[in-house]
Amino acid sequence: MKLSDIYWYLKQDISKIEKEIEKTIDAEHAILQEASSHLLKAGGKRIRPVFVLLSAQFGTYDIERIKHVAVPLELIHMGSLVHDDVIDDASVRRGEETIKAKWDNRIAMYTGDYIFAKAIEIAAAETNIALHQTLSEAMVEMAIGEVEQIKDQYNWNQNMRMYLRRIRRKTALLIAVSCELGALVAEASEQDRINLKKYGYYTGMAFQITDDILDFVGTEKELGKPAGSDLQQGNLTLPALYAMHQDEQLYEDISAYLQSGGDKLMDMPGVIRRIRASGGIDFSKKLADRYLAKAHDALAPLESNRAKRALTEIAEYIGERKF
Amino acid sequence: MKLSDIYWYLKQDISKIEKEIEKTIDAEHAILQEASSHLLKAGGKRIRPVFVLLSAQFGTYDIERIKHVAVPLELIHMGSLVHDDVIDDASVRRGEETIKAKWDNRIAMYTGDYIFAKAIEIAAAETNIALHQTLSEAMVEMAIGEVEQIKDQYNWNQNMRMYLRRIRRKTALLIAVSCELGALVAEASEQDRINLKKYGYYTGMAFQITDDILDFVGTEKELGKPAGSDLQQGNLTLPALYAMHQDEQLYEDISAYLQSGGDKLMDMPGVIRRIRASGGIDFSKKLADRYLAKAHDALAPLESNRAKRALTEIAEYIGERKF
Repeated sequence: MKLSDIYWYLKQDISKIEKEIEKTIDAEHAILQEASSHLLKAGGKRIRPVFVLLSAQFGTYDIERIKHVAVPLELIHMGSLVHDDVIDDASVRRGEETIKAKWDNRIAMYTGDYIFAKAIEIAAAETNIALHQTLSEAMVEMAIGEVEQIKDQYNWNQNMRMYLRRIRRKTALLIAVSCELGALVAEASEQDRINLKKYGYYTGMAFQITDDILDFVGTEKELGKPAGSDLQQGNLTLPALYAMHQDEQLYEDISAYLQSGGDKLMDMPGVIRRIRASGGIDFSKKLADRYLAKAHDALAPLESNRAKRALTEIAEYIGERKF
Repeated sequence: MKLSDIYWYLKQDISKIEKEIEKTIDAEHAILQEASSHLLKAGGKRIRPVFVLLSAQFGTYDIERIKHVAVPLELIHMGSLVHDDVIDDASVRRGEETIKAKWDNRIAMYTGDYIFAKAIEIAAAETNIALHQTLSEAMVEMAIGEVEQIKDQYNWNQNMRMYLRRIRRKTALLIAVSCELGALVAEASEQDRINLKKYGYYTGMAFQITDDILDFVGTEKELGKPAGSDLQQGNLTLPALYAMHQDEQLYEDISAYLQSGGDKLMDMPGVIRRIRASGGIDFSKKLADRYLAKAHDALAPLESNRAKRALTEIAEYIGERKF
């Protein structure tokens, strides 16, 4: 089953949102268009708009209003991807920054700024203060999260709390806000809105933990990048973090790698084997499942409808996700 | 006379705005605080809040509402300064990007993002759709302006239209919006709001042209940087642009410098002398004065009050500005 099979009946509305996103990105300035067009080509699951649309079905479903939050939420996600690309490791590692790289970096930064501003501009069509506050608070939290991620990069002395805090801001928050604002713009009941927000938060946490597991268990073909890339780039995710605290030698090896700022060689296939053997994958999987159980609990009080079934199936899909 | 003498009676409200800005920047995360604290130390004239406060005096003046636009407008300005600092020429010119520079750059980028998001969050307290649209449109335009500035940098083949378009987005727009939103949040009449916006736009254009003149006529002590810095960094401003088209040899020399991407040596004191001799300064001064005359015209229909006198005096101050 493909993820999109779960919400097949939203196809038309998703395509409407997609077109609005295209229109936003594809305009106003040739350079900006060029800089952001790869985002459109890359596509993406548009999972945030999907959560908005599904959550809006617990109130008055009006796509003309829903798009005022669905489009901004995807744009905010896209803007953050653009900023993630700024000053990538590769260009720095080569030891010199070319004028072209510098140009591209500044363009990428302002392209991100442009996309963020466009997101706000589209949301401005809605008068609800809570909506604007929720959206801007999410952007504030995301910026703080990015700074935390930079601070934690190549930091070998981490605990699980730091990891969870990071993925909360990196992923769970924007999915929670997608559900919350979908309910808000459809004027669903406050109780439904709170439950949908919780569902989004727990689902987002499980989604990111699963993503971090797959980075160690997927093949290069499935992942589109070598296994262990996160760790290679100095990002300590849950499977490795847990395993380090079970296996003293592994702790030494990963710490040494991180302390060297990624300069030291590391036997990645060996490290991945030891992470598995130390139970890092199993532990992470169990935690993801606990979050998914909480997501299901949050859905329970909601009325039974097609949207509730779809949200339930999305959570199940994440639990069984292979790549 | 100091600029702040003109609006001395706003001192208390400006200090209130200042405190709100401090509170916003000075919180939430130690790294962000560190990264943005130099902005606070640097101070600044807080000219955008001043325009907001003065414009609000043509309606119902309520500082508790006015701050919802005055603070965001200054924050947007500050965020753009932070992003301007990202990947500065100096660190690139040395031919290598250190890990520290890279770290600082990413932190600076996300600090800017954080400040922008905070600006939006504070403005979210106001329900007026026009306000949110105006603010977000300004951010969109500014991002486009930054991309234009990058594109035009080291471009020797420019005309005056390109220069004016650039300073419009770089400076005039945010001052126009400051006046417009001050009037809007105070619920001034539509006609007053339009006139104040025009006043802000023309004053902003004159302000930037004057700034660009001073870069060629000021001393290093007055400017806090060597004279001719703009041109040195590849930014072609009006005095040089005009002079190039009057003096063929100057055109050759400046073009060669810009075409070399700033690598070629240039006799800056000599270039400055020739810019003066070609009438580049006089021409620019006359254009600034024309904008200031338009600013005065825009004010004319407004009722006579202390705020109108202050706005008039600010325009006069800019016309006589020495550094």
